[in-house]
Parts: sequence; structure tokens; C-alpha cells
Amino acid sequence: MEKGYERLSLVFIGAGNLATNLAKALYDKGFPIRQIYSRTEDSARVLSEKVSCGYTTDIKDVAKGADMYIVSVKDAALPGLLPELTKGKREALWVHTAGSLPAEIWNGYADRYGVLYPMQTFSKRRAVDFGKIPFFIEANSAEDNNVLEAVARMLSDRVYTITSEQRKCLHLAAVFACNFSNHMYSLIAELLERNNIPFDIMLPLIDETVSKIHEMSPHDAQTGPAVRYDENVMNMHLAMLEGNPEMQDIYKLISKSIHEHHQL
Amino acid sequence: MEKGYERLSLVFIGAGNLATNLAKALYDKGFPIRQIYSRTEDSARVLSEKVSCGYTTDIKDVAKGADMYIVSVKDAALPGLLPELTKGKREALWVHTAGSLPAEIWNGYADRYGVLYPMQTFSKRRAVDFGKIPFFIEANSAEDNNVLEAVARMLSDRVYTITSEQRKCLHLAAVFACNFSNHMYSLIAELLERNNIPFDIMLPLIDETVSKIHEMSPHDAQTGPAVRYDENVMNMHLAMLEGNPEMQDIYKLISKSIHEHHQL
Repeated sequence: MEKGYERLSLVFIGAGNLATNLAKALYDKGFPIRQIYSRTEDSARVLSEKVSCGYTTDIKDVAKGADMYIVSVKDAALPGLLPELTKGKREALWVHTAGSLPAEIWNGYADRYGVLYPMQTFSKRRAVDFGKIPFFIEANSAEDNNVLEAVARMLSDRVYTITSEQRKCLHLAAVFACNFSNHMYSLIAELLERNNIPFDIMLPLIDETVSKIHEMSPHDAQTGPAVRYDENVMNMHLAMLEGNPEMQDIYKLISKSIHEHHQL
Repeated sequence: MEKGYERLSLVFIGAGNLATNLAKALYDKGFPIRQIYSRTEDSARVLSEKVSCGYTTDIKDVAKGADMYIVSVKDAALPGLLPELTKGKREALWVHTAGSLPAEIWNGYADRYGVLYPMQTFSKRRAVDFGKIPFFIEANSAEDNNVLEAVARMLSDRVYTITSEQRKCLHLAAVFACNFSNHMYSLIAELLERNNIPFDIMLPLIDETVSKIHEMSPHDAQTGPAVRYDENVMNMHLAMLEGNPEMQDIYKLISKSIHEHHQL
């Protein structure tokens, strides 16, 4: 890794979960943060205080002259921001952090651009260990790919150059791996609460479910009534969910899918 | 804990994932295992060798005179086995290990009975650390509740006496927490394989998803396009799953459920 990349000055566009975690991590590594932009003043101010810089809620006031702009806004919002955002700053390196947006979204707005996608679930009030996070990068030139690789390597050893198509696939997988599995926990937290059972009691089971797939494939690790096709148990569970059609539908659909994947 | 419980002689009925792990753990604690019964000769023999005892595949040959019979068979199979299984052995302590079966299933077949339910996902080829596993027990007398508590406490500090109704609820929750979340991993393992991306790349994200819920509620921990209601991303994901109606249906149903739980 070349030296000096940590002197690149940065502006963050967006102050959500990902931007908050990434800005703090890069700030801790010595990167000077020039400014935070967010539509939401509270978010902009809170993050700017954490990384000792100014902030703005007006896109026209985004600072010019930074080396790199890191954009983490809702995917749907980015296209509309592009013309105003990049005006007078085409020569900087522009990156977004989204799994699902192609690098080409910058084409026509910036001369140097790319993607810096840390695949992780970020919440503002939980600091994550970036050292374990895979970064997926992409740039429109080999030089800027090197820049992004060097920046990412200051945070993590796991940096991969991939295409936008591959990143889209990873992001879709991340939704199932993280958001959907977490929603299973959410649903049962509510179910257990209604039955006065503390959710914590589930943690050893949840931990072991994940430990297992470090050693064997998820397919081989599967257990439970659906993989055994134990209709007695499944019908009893569906009866228990009688007043909860949402969980019933999820139970039916996933059990059917498990069964089908284990008949092959 | 009273001494001497580890001299109770045990017979295991069933030699599946749970029986295999529990029999080995109790054998390691010094319990004499008298016999293994399984319909499947291979399973019976393999487990009997691990715990140094005989085995049978004939229910009529199940050894008489053991102190405790631990029954881990498919829920649907147990009722049919009861008359033959318990014949001439009513005075022993009979327990099953199922989350979903009431203790009362023994009523009329055994004088002393109960449940010893370790809530965990067991696979034969992975040894689990019983010390972290919650055991849920139930018995038809205070004395035998004490026996089951003492036996369970030799393996784990987390032993809880609960009712059959509470255990049913825990088992249903376990299906969502373990089997359904694991199926999310299975589905994406296949998706990634089709795209030549190794599944291991997902492990840091999966690990963090679970670490988070040790600190905050799953509801607060939720991230991703569904909770943001980022329709652009969700529609793109559904389009990517065009040839996979199974994953498409799961994507739609769980995203809808996430969204609904975060509008409240």
C-alpha cells in the first residue's frame, strides 16, 4: 500500500447508518473530513461533531475542492442529486457506497468515479469492527481503483475489486442473510413477549445456528420439522399462529421451501 | 445439586441428531448408558459404539430395568411406540426431548414421566457445547422434576422448569430463529454459487447481524431496503429473481412484513 492516502480530504454526502460508521472509522485513521451534508439537520450536525468538521443541509453549499466525495444516500435519491452535487467538482473522485447502484450512475457527472461498498449492517449507535468487513470496490480507472483499494485497506484486509453486476448479486444475498434472518428474530421477539418469555433465551440457539455454518454448508446444517417433514409439528405450529396470518404465511412459505430443497 | 445422579442408568430411544449429542454428553459425564434403540440399524450401531453399550432395532428388545429412558424420535412416531415401548417398564422415569409434545403424552403408559428439552440445533457431525444450552424440563412429580433438574445441571447452568404450553411456544420460536434464518443462508448459498461467489464472503455480515441482537432488539437492529422502503432497490431485486419464483415470493412476503413492522 502506498503512503499518503490518509491525507486525502473527504466530504460525506449523507449521514445515515453507513455514513456515520464509515466517516468515524476513516476519521479515526487520520483522514481529514471536510464536511458532512445531509438533508436532515440533526443527522448532519451529530455526525459533523463526531468527525470535527462543518456541515450543511443545502446541496448548493457542499464544499468544493475535496479529494474524494463519499455518497451514502437512499438509492432512489441519488440520481436526482447528481447534477447539483457534482457541479464544479468533476475532477474529484466520486464514490457511492451502495450495493445495488452501478458505478455508471456517475457517468456524465464526474470524470473520476467508483464504488466503495462495505458489506455490513450498520446502526448509528453500534460501532462495528471494520477489520472484519469485506469491502467491494470498483472505479473507472486503474489509478482510482488503486486509490480506493488503499483507502479500504486502511480499514480492512478484505478488499475485493468486483463488477457492478457482482455487487448487485452480493447486495441481494445480503438482504436475505441479514435483513430477512433478522426479521425472523423480530417476529419471535414479539411472539415471546406476548407469552412473557424473555427473548434472550433464544440467543444460544441463534449463536449456534450461525457457528454451524462456519463449518458446514447451510444446507447440511438444516434441522427442524420442515426438513424432517414432520407434519404433526408443522400443523400444530400453524394452529398456534391462528390469530397471526402474517407469521402463518411466512411459516408455510419457508417450510415449503425448506422441504423442497431437502427432497432433491 | 445432590450427588449420585450420574449413576442413573440410561436407555436412549432414537439415535438421531439430538439423541446422538445428548447421549455422548451424558456418557462423558459418567452416566452408564445401557442401550440404544433405533429403527435404523446404522444409527443405532454408530451411537452405541460412541457410548459403549449395546443396541437394538427391535422395540420388543428394549432393555428393562434402566433408571431413565430418554426418547428422541420424530414426534409423529412416538404415540404409536408408547404401548410396546413402556411395557414392563412403567416404574422407570420416562422423558422425551421434544419441544412440541406435551408431557401428558406419557399419561397412562408410565407412572413417572416428564420432558427434558435442550433448545438447540444438533447435527451428528458437530459436537455442541452443552454448557450454553438452555434446558427446559417438566415432570409429573416434584421428585422427578428434581431428578431432571439435577441431570440437566450436570450439562448446563441454564435449566428452567416450564409448562408444556410454554415449551410449545419456545419450540415455535426456535423454528423461526434457527430453521428459517438458516434457510435464508441456504437460499443465498445457492444463488452465490450460481454466480461463482464463495458463500464465506457473507459470514462477517451474518456474524454481525447476530452480534447486534445481543445488544439491541432485533426491531431496532433492522436495516436494508425494506425498512427504508426503498422501492427502487426492492424492485430491482425482484427483477433479478425473475427466474426464481420461490425466492421472489419469499422476498416479497418478508419485505412486506418488515415494512409493516416498521410503520407502527
